[in-house]
Amino acid sequence: MSATRHAPLPGPFRLQRGGTLQDGTIAFETWGTLDAARSNAVLLYTGLSPSAHAASSPDDPRPGWWEPMIGPGAPLDTRRLFVVCVNSLGSCFGSTGPASTDPRNGRRYGKDFPELALEDIARGGGEVLRHLGIGRAHAVVGASQGGMVALAHLALFPGGARHLVSISGTMAATPYAVALRSIQRDAVMADPAFRGGDYPPEDPPRAGLALARKVGTVTYRSAEELGQRFGRSPSREGRDFAVQDYLAQQAARFAGAFDANCYLRLSRAMDLFDLAAHGAPSEVFRRSGLESALVVGVELDHLFTVQEQAVLADALRAGGIDTSFARLDSLAGHDAFLVDFTAFDATLRPWFAARSP
Amino acid sequence: MSATRHAPLPGPFRLQRGGTLQDGTIAFETWGTLDAARSNAVLLYTGLSPSAHAASSPDDPRPGWWEPMIGPGAPLDTRRLFVVCVNSLGSCFGSTGPASTDPRNGRRYGKDFPELALEDIARGGGEVLRHLGIGRAHAVVGASQGGMVALAHLALFPGGARHLVSISGTMAATPYAVALRSIQRDAVMADPAFRGGDYPPEDPPRAGLALARKVGTVTYRSAEELGQRFGRSPSREGRDFAVQDYLAQQAARFAGAFDANCYLRLSRAMDLFDLAAHGAPSEVFRRSGLESALVVGVELDHLFTVQEQAVLADALRAGGIDTSFARLDSLAGHDAFLVDFTAFDATLRPWFAARSP
Repeated sequence: MSATRHAPLPGPFRLQRGGTLQDGTIAFETWGTLDAARSNAVLLYTGLSPSAHAASSPDDPRPGWWEPMIGPGAPLDTRRLFVVCVNSLGSCFGSTGPASTDPRNGRRYGKDFPELALEDIARGGGEVLRHLGIGRAHAVVGASQGGMVALAHLALFPGGARHLVSISGTMAATPYAVALRSIQRDAVMADPAFRGGDYPPEDPPRAGLALARKVGTVTYRSAEELGQRFGRSPSREGRDFAVQDYLAQQAARFAGAFDANCYLRLSRAMDLFDLAAHGAPSEVFRRSGLESALVVGVELDHLFTVQEQAVLADALRAGGIDTSFARLDSLAGHDAFLVDFTAFDATLRPWFAARSP
Repeated sequence: MSATRHAPLPGPFRLQRGGTLQDGTIAFETWGTLDAARSNAVLLYTGLSPSAHAASSPDDPRPGWWEPMIGPGAPLDTRRLFVVCVNSLGSCFGSTGPASTDPRNGRRYGKDFPELALEDIARGGGEVLRHLGIGRAHAVVGASQGGMVALAHLALFPGGARHLVSISGTMAATPYAVALRSIQRDAVMADPAFRGGDYPPEDPPRAGLALARKVGTVTYRSAEELGQRFGRSPSREGRDFAVQDYLAQQAARFAGAFDANCYLRLSRAMDLFDLAAHGAPSEVFRRSGLESALVVGVELDHLFTVQEQAVLADALRAGGIDTSFARLDSLAGHDAFLVDFTAFDATLRPWFAARSP
């Protein structure tokens, strides 16, 4: 069963860095009911790798990646909010991306998929709202890459949202994050199975993707968490230490599920994004029409540092936006929003409760 | 010109994890003059990749990796100290290692080199001292892997040194450090040019070594330093950002100089080392015969954290050793001892000056 729906991209859909897509589509899922005034929509952008399946529903009872956050009585309370989660343009879970077929020639886009910008992903989200007849979102919400896309959305659609929730996002990636992501892309491209991007779908560069995900896993978590969870416990799978088993498990899961060209496009788009390309951030926010914003950062996040969250909150305030800034203590580091639901419930629940659509 | 000398390993030299070496040798360099009482030797262990060429000398005027720290009037003042730096057993700069020829069959050891322990490296250092007729070192000094080897040296040779200087070392690697090093080894082994370790010397797994070094470079430096040095400056070499050029330069230099099997052995030996295998650390230190110790850590070092330095200093004190603990602020992170010579001069100079051989 699937709860996935699709919104068409107007064609030809011109990408920001060049190239066009024909008959493109954006996959999305929804929870709750759009009210008569079409004023209660919460647009949710994902991190680099999740699908639009953020929560379970009657049509797809599998738990979603933000299951405890969305539903009746949850922080994103579907008794009053209509939550819309989009699969990013360029991803491989229903939206058009490198793993999709180009209708112009019947072949997979593969390495010929155009370069991607986070702004393209935001325009995809905008098309989903238009498809649903929503002029202005109650809130736009995003975490990690999704937080960056949410900022792109505000820049592209002034007046498009009343509220913003940015979780462990950034206005522009740090050189440290760029370095780590560039290494991950190197790992994929160095795998001979990558074949310059021309791998057959049934024989993808799994080893390269696995290596990339191992690097990712270390950056998504905190050293403190790895220390507490694994210590120097021995491996149960013939390696030296249990922490290596953990990396291998995370890597195998990802390498079996994600397309390499999609990964490369999405990863590089994060590096290249810079909100300042749209003007001084405070001016971008002033033009955005936002009423309020919530910025959430995690102290032990070394990929999207809490300092970057503070800078974002300052830029929002400089733009005249009523901004709350929550610094969370979580051992989970950058991944806190995916695992530390208690802390996020406590932060998001009162904030959304105080803002009626 | 070379200043490298060699000390023979007694043969067969039995390694801690099994296997033997025949006609093994340890490369070393020295600076200053051994006094008549043979009491002024400072034994210096290196990080994973440097050679024994820690400083220039008449026989080899090239600057060494610790050039400002060693010499007449330097913190390691060669007007009164006799400094001995050893190339680690298992490395590829003169000491016996996987890139050496096995005299028993005339072939490179390669993948058949025995598994290595940091204790083996320390026994190699012990053989150098014996070769020089030194019964007890004035001090044993090490940074990074060398700091760990220095601890192994103390465990193996009670009474073998009067003083210890441990810089950014550890009694046992954290799971975070293990995770990152295991990823680096994966990168080398995943390179098809590695050929399971049977690569010809003229066609080594350069891409894998380069990828490993890129990961290493990010872990050796701090995010703060990368931010200040590179910001989001564009690449001058066709990549996206200048920080990627920096990674590529570091990687190319390393991949052209270091042997892959040596790298794998040395890296894994760091993961596996645990001083507690020799007994409770405080008891190891009590038995060591040390008179005093200096532990140096760097706040932004995330590979060998300053917390680990504090734990080491506590264990030394619990063992009755007069211990100084210096926490240095340096943007350079783990690599501070290789680049931030002002801070290290200020720390090491008075400490050595106060301790006459």
